[in-house]
Amino acid sequence: MTFELTKEFLEKIETAITGRDDALLRAEMDELYPADITMLLYELETEPAHYLFSLLNTEIGAEILAEIEPEDRKRFLENFSSAEIARYIEVFDSDDAVDLLQEQPIQVREEVIGLLEDREQARFIIDLLPYDEDVAGGLMQKELVKANVNWTVNECIEEIRKQAEDVEKVYAVYVVDDNQTLLGLISLKNLVLARKNTKIGNIYDEDIHYVETYRPVEEVSEIMQRYDLEAIPVVNVQKRLLGRITIDDVLDVIIEKAEEDIQAISGITGEVEEDDNLWQQVKGRLPWLIVGVIGSLMAATVIRIFEGELSKIAALAMFIPIMGSTGGNVGIQTASLIVQALADKSGLEISWKERLLKIIVIASLNGLIIGLLAGLYVLVFSQTQLVWVVSLSLMAVVLLASFMGTITPLILDRFGINPAVASGPFITTANDLVGIGTYFLIAHFLLKM
Amino acid sequence: MTFELTKEFLEKIETAITGRDDALLRAEMDELYPADITMLLYELETEPAHYLFSLLNTEIGAEILAEIEPEDRKRFLENFSSAEIARYIEVFDSDDAVDLLQEQPIQVREEVIGLLEDREQARFIIDLLPYDEDVAGGLMQKELVKANVNWTVNECIEEIRKQAEDVEKVYAVYVVDDNQTLLGLISLKNLVLARKNTKIGNIYDEDIHYVETYRPVEEVSEIMQRYDLEAIPVVNVQKRLLGRITIDDVLDVIIEKAEEDIQAISGITGEVEEDDNLWQQVKGRLPWLIVGVIGSLMAATVIRIFEGELSKIAALAMFIPIMGSTGGNVGIQTASLIVQALADKSGLEISWKERLLKIIVIASLNGLIIGLLAGLYVLVFSQTQLVWVVSLSLMAVVLLASFMGTITPLILDRFGINPAVASGPFITTANDLVGIGTYFLIAHFLLKM
Repeated sequence: MTFELTKEFLEKIETAITGRDDALLRAEMDELYPADITMLLYELETEPAHYLFSLLNTEIGAEILAEIEPEDRKRFLENFSSAEIARYIEVFDSDDAVDLLQEQPIQVREEVIGLLEDREQARFIIDLLPYDEDVAGGLMQKELVKANVNWTVNECIEEIRKQAEDVEKVYAVYVVDDNQTLLGLISLKNLVLARKNTKIGNIYDEDIHYVETYRPVEEVSEIMQRYDLEAIPVVNVQKRLLGRITIDDVLDVIIEKAEEDIQAISGITGEVEEDDNLWQQVKGRLPWLIVGVIGSLMAATVIRIFEGELSKIAALAMFIPIMGSTGGNVGIQTASLIVQALADKSGLEISWKERLLKIIVIASLNGLIIGLLAGLYVLVFSQTQLVWVVSLSLMAVVLLASFMGTITPLILDRFGINPAVASGPFITTANDLVGIGTYFLIAHFLLKM
Repeated sequence: MTFELTKEFLEKIETAITGRDDALLRAEMDELYPADITMLLYELETEPAHYLFSLLNTEIGAEILAEIEPEDRKRFLENFSSAEIARYIEVFDSDDAVDLLQEQPIQVREEVIGLLEDREQARFIIDLLPYDEDVAGGLMQKELVKANVNWTVNECIEEIRKQAEDVEKVYAVYVVDDNQTLLGLISLKNLVLARKNTKIGNIYDEDIHYVETYRPVEEVSEIMQRYDLEAIPVVNVQKRLLGRITIDDVLDVIIEKAEEDIQAISGITGEVEEDDNLWQQVKGRLPWLIVGVIGSLMAATVIRIFEGELSKIAALAMFIPIMGSTGGNVGIQTASLIVQALADKSGLEISWKERLLKIIVIASLNGLIIGLLAGLYVLVFSQTQLVWVVSLSLMAVVLLASFMGTITPLILDRFGINPAVASGPFITTANDLVGIGTYFLIAHFLLKM
């Protein structure tokens, strides 16, 4: 039942494509779900992928196009005419149609909309195009089943029958008044159980969750998670029902966000994947590596200033690594916890003052323990005159790194930059620099050189 | 409609609890969803939280208990008798009931099961207890609606009516034969649209997704995402229908996994949150900090070995930071991409050989660029005799760090440890050490000291 893509299967398909064995290809594709064909297409070269795709019927092709990553889709569609694109858009859900069209040049976009035979679909798309992708309106689809509050259960079921083809997943029927104002909903379960001539007005659930079009996507996702919703209706400021957001779209957003955060923390820009080509990988990694190099060369410059001290006490060099790495580690830990707290919209906000105070106490405790540990090492393996220099510097470094790890994500967040970036190479680099500077300054004054 | 917890509201509730104003508390709680009350309870001290909780009716209380984090729940339930726990378990979904009971001592667990009046619930729980939490069986619930293939649509609807109270969310009715073997399903939508006396056997969908109890949770989550499923039936090896997994539980798993990964990368052990108390935070951070300190002190020892070289050419110390941080950054980037590739179960597996080859090429390119950059700095700001030492060392460090960043997560994964740990302080620390060692060795040989 669950498809697994094997090397043998891939080779069989590739041979069939080269041999233009359409019968075999069609038969094999009939056995697969669209999501499986997508996986297969990803493994093929562009030309054979296009050929295989052209053999699929429009519905299957549309499901595949709706699913592949935006960048890949854009590349894949480059040789498609507007008429061909329109043929697929015709059977798309409205939200996916808008996503695809927004990747296309304006001219193609307008042409495709003009070519649509389904005028309702064209209207849906025109309605959805203005919304930003990071608000509820940008995630919603127009396809939904709604019923007038004055209808009977039977009329409602007839409406579902009419909509059945357009609305793939029906979780509930939304109940509206004559002005299309959202009043509530009836779950499909209750609809199944209700008697046919009951008035909708008597059985619908008034106490429901909904979001306005302008709500940020994170808020929508938070609400759907908190209340375990598989779909949520979207309304305008007058509470008129405009569309709905389904859980699968929110799930995609959540997963994408998590991957972005992890890449940001790891110092990778853009959406690099391990199977991207060489140049994409080099490009995705180089920017932060260079930031790191520049930071380290600034640290080198700081050390050069203290070359006099170093040539007198070469042992000072021994503790350069611990200053840099402790600063980096503490900074990343602190920043990550702040980023996590920023993402968690529930609960009460703690004030900045409380937050900073707490972080200072934690840092002091950690700094004390680390300082003692390192001091012990110095006593045993190095020169006693350095014990205080190393211990005090470490405590100072932990404090400074905690402070920077706290404010950097808060500042980034305020400027609308993903605060997870702060947990990455940026914090490490900055802390390397601050750590080493602090160390040599303290050494300079304590050793009176 | 969507509740926001304000300071004013919290104070009002706290005052009411102190004054034992039960009427007001009950009225206020009636206005809230269980998820909102949960949020409120998190902000209260233990004693007032217990008091407020005791005022809630069993259904609401059970929903709240099903929702709070395992550790908090365990603490919250410490003063509850087995009879009290049983009262809530009675109305739990079976999967949540098992989760809660598994946190309790065996004696409490057995007592609670013995005290359950709903014998079906007790049987469900006993069925589910043996499964590990990281396989499909550990995530499934027994509550579902199934229909015999020989029934009519009408009989099927009667079954839903009977089960309606136990099964909160019905997405589909599973179709089984007389041996309870899973044959397929009917979506609620199709059930609504079907005529009452149609035979289920004529209208059900045979081509469905299901999982066996032993499938890893990641696989279940991957399948549900790939095919956009809101529920998936779980069967045993004979394909007998045992339960179902719903999307909200999978969503929780996905989010938890993402948070764990981010914490692992950031070098935080356990599940620390920013609003945890001081000691928990220190405890969560200290282990990896100490690993970092030990690594750095080993680096200090390496440097001590080369103290002779350092006292001759103090400028060597200038490039200690760049060796450490470049190694760390490259290692984390590489490890993150490998971790991501490991998590992505779709697509073809690339062989180790191809993977390593590609990584070496990327590393060489990045190493070359970074080496040139740093070489330039040395030429301008430091001694020309160090140009080759620094450039060559950097290239070697990038190569070594890439190699380690690749194999560490692969090895951890093979031993069943979360490979994301490899992107954290472990890689940084190891690379610091390797980087600095490489640097001084190359310096030693090139400068013939």
